[in-house]
Amino acid sequence: MLAYNEEVIDVSDNINDRLKWLASFGERKDVGITRLLYTDSWLKAQQALATWMKQLGLNVYYDDVGNLFGRLEGKNPLAKPILTGSHIDTVKHGGMYDGSYGIVAGILALKTLMEREGEPERSVEVVSICEEEGSRFPFTYWGSKNIVGETIKEDVSELRDEEGISLLEAKNRLGFTSKLTTRKKKDVSAFIELHVEQGIILEREKLDIGIVEAIVGQRRFNVRLHGEANHAGTTPMKYRRDAVRGAGKLIDHLMEMADDYGEPLVATVGKIEVLPNTPNVIPGEVSFTIDVRHPEVEVLEAFCDHFYNEFYTISKRCNLQIEITRWMESEPVKMAPELNEKILEVCLHKNIKYKKMISGAGHDAQVFSKYYPATLLFVPSQQGVSHSPLEYTDERNLQIGINVLTETLYKLAYKGERT
Amino acid sequence: MLAYNEEVIDVSDNINDRLKWLASFGERKDVGITRLLYTDSWLKAQQALATWMKQLGLNVYYDDVGNLFGRLEGKNPLAKPILTGSHIDTVKHGGMYDGSYGIVAGILALKTLMEREGEPERSVEVVSICEEEGSRFPFTYWGSKNIVGETIKEDVSELRDEEGISLLEAKNRLGFTSKLTTRKKKDVSAFIELHVEQGIILEREKLDIGIVEAIVGQRRFNVRLHGEANHAGTTPMKYRRDAVRGAGKLIDHLMEMADDYGEPLVATVGKIEVLPNTPNVIPGEVSFTIDVRHPEVEVLEAFCDHFYNEFYTISKRCNLQIEITRWMESEPVKMAPELNEKILEVCLHKNIKYKKMISGAGHDAQVFSKYYPATLLFVPSQQGVSHSPLEYTDERNLQIGINVLTETLYKLAYKGERT
Repeated sequence: MLAYNEEVIDVSDNINDRLKWLASFGERKDVGITRLLYTDSWLKAQQALATWMKQLGLNVYYDDVGNLFGRLEGKNPLAKPILTGSHIDTVKHGGMYDGSYGIVAGILALKTLMEREGEPERSVEVVSICEEEGSRFPFTYWGSKNIVGETIKEDVSELRDEEGISLLEAKNRLGFTSKLTTRKKKDVSAFIELHVEQGIILEREKLDIGIVEAIVGQRRFNVRLHGEANHAGTTPMKYRRDAVRGAGKLIDHLMEMADDYGEPLVATVGKIEVLPNTPNVIPGEVSFTIDVRHPEVEVLEAFCDHFYNEFYTISKRCNLQIEITRWMESEPVKMAPELNEKILEVCLHKNIKYKKMISGAGHDAQVFSKYYPATLLFVPSQQGVSHSPLEYTDERNLQIGINVLTETLYKLAYKGERT
Repeated sequence: MLAYNEEVIDVSDNINDRLKWLASFGERKDVGITRLLYTDSWLKAQQALATWMKQLGLNVYYDDVGNLFGRLEGKNPLAKPILTGSHIDTVKHGGMYDGSYGIVAGILALKTLMEREGEPERSVEVVSICEEEGSRFPFTYWGSKNIVGETIKEDVSELRDEEGISLLEAKNRLGFTSKLTTRKKKDVSAFIELHVEQGIILEREKLDIGIVEAIVGQRRFNVRLHGEANHAGTTPMKYRRDAVRGAGKLIDHLMEMADDYGEPLVATVGKIEVLPNTPNVIPGEVSFTIDVRHPEVEVLEAFCDHFYNEFYTISKRCNLQIEITRWMESEPVKMAPELNEKILEVCLHKNIKYKKMISGAGHDAQVFSKYYPATLLFVPSQQGVSHSPLEYTDERNLQIGINVLTETLYKLAYKGERT
């Protein structure tokens, strides 16, 4: 990669100061932080993190796509390392906690362990993952998928950003052209990702830590109803084939069904399009999206089958034609119970108010979880705001998250507690 | 007005031939017929009608805004004339029946009466009303409102078309600058408008004539629901304030209420806007329109009060804020029972399948009805299509309409049957 100046920057290792410092490596033309993969601000952020990690005494390296690792070497060369960290890239106009918190928290946890406990039994690595969001190129989890080797099977040569620059060109331009390490990253004993919740559950329930048991699977659909556009004044109710009337009934029914299935199932109708969309014309066509999420594939499929059936029945009764298209699906992922057990012990020992919960959003941990024990730890997000300059978590909660991570890593790397 | 060439055009007086002939005076750049007020094609159409009327032996005159009259003089100068006719202007890309049919049918009815019965007791006039639709200028019923003198009270000096040409300028440019007649048009004994239904009732019920008892009143509303935009994955159902969910419930409820009130009440939600309108975000705001119509003001108001109350209750239960704005209202209008009685007699005598019905759309007859007995006669519209190049009524039905009009005018003008 490009040369950079390893200047020592005088920043205290307080979590808030370090988050602000990391946020300073981002474009701020408008509002929020924008740090897209392989941009200048992204490179500067990785380089600054590398410098900081070196200063703390970690062994620093990049892999061939730009994931940045800081390794605290353990005594036992045969013990597989423990990995912690999160993603360095942001959405456009994002906040300073999403992703960044997990990286800074991981470095601070390693710093505390080094200072307090010295050399671990098992190596611990903190990773600043180069891409999770897919904000510049249409490809999510690029960083973590490279770590586990999944991208080898995928053809990414055609991926381009909005300006037509290809993903591989952008990568090569920064010097990430060859494998800089021979470490097999599949050979890891555990991955722990600390992240802001990006939801409102912990805040509403006045809890400090979320121990994630599963990341939901998702199904997305488009529902299109065909009726008959007609005059709003001259068409009696009994002769109508009103697509909006049908949509209202279907949406209401879907939501009642979601309530009946109960937590953690969620269903959302986020987008509606009406034709012709004029006050005095009965709409002849409506389409709307459905997003359904649940951590168990059986429940997810059962719910989807159920609403399919109900929708066909109701549409027929309303004399409307219906087309349902499934255009996105991602499978649910279980987090490692043995890791969650360690985290739970830490919470109980430290008297921290925790909740075993589900993540409704995707995270790098789900990519890792196919290859080794992986889990996800949440701290509260104020009002659930995320992917916004307004995202916020107070310092107390940020610190509790770091403490739980530190103690969990201690158990795994120093105490020889095998997962 | 501008001079014109009174050339004799060789067109048969078959209804279809005359409708096609009248349709030829219209811009046909794209599809359908466009004949907007005070345009060249509009003027040519009025002039052609005037020539035809003169050829048939009617006394022809324009009033000061361009309404064209053809008068069959009666024997009794003290008897107030009977008026029939409809509007000559079209919507943009309209069909050849809307408005035009009533004018051509009126002329053909007078032709038949003259030929068959000679001079009537009471004068009969056919009127080609210069503007009903308001397609060029934002003002509906300009022609009929001028006939009854209503526009005197309104300031129309600021009305302009899309190109910035003012209504009054456009009128004056064609020479309609002063009163060309001293006849007081308020002094009329009856007005009968024959029109295509623009709805599907007569066709569905296999009937030939609709005798309109009332034109509906209308109320239009905008309903805005405020909830809370949030992440579709990380927000449990119980913590949501989902504006689309609320809208679905309200729309479904409104439609059930409309069914419960029964015919002839109609309610339509024609337009919906969702914010942010993205598949994976719970919508924080939705607005939708409501159009409600009924021929009785008490029922109309009762329904609106009823849904207002229900909407506030349901929104509160859904934890959504609601704003309802009434942005349009027009009052119901009763057609003259004494005229409808005559029409009914004609239908019964001629064994014509009729229906006493409500008009869900507005017509010139509603303007006249405030000043003298006025009514509206419908013939079927194929599939209810209107304001479209596809509008169609078959020749048999067009002829039945003319026959009923002719016999009704005969009763009123020749037989001395007072209304």
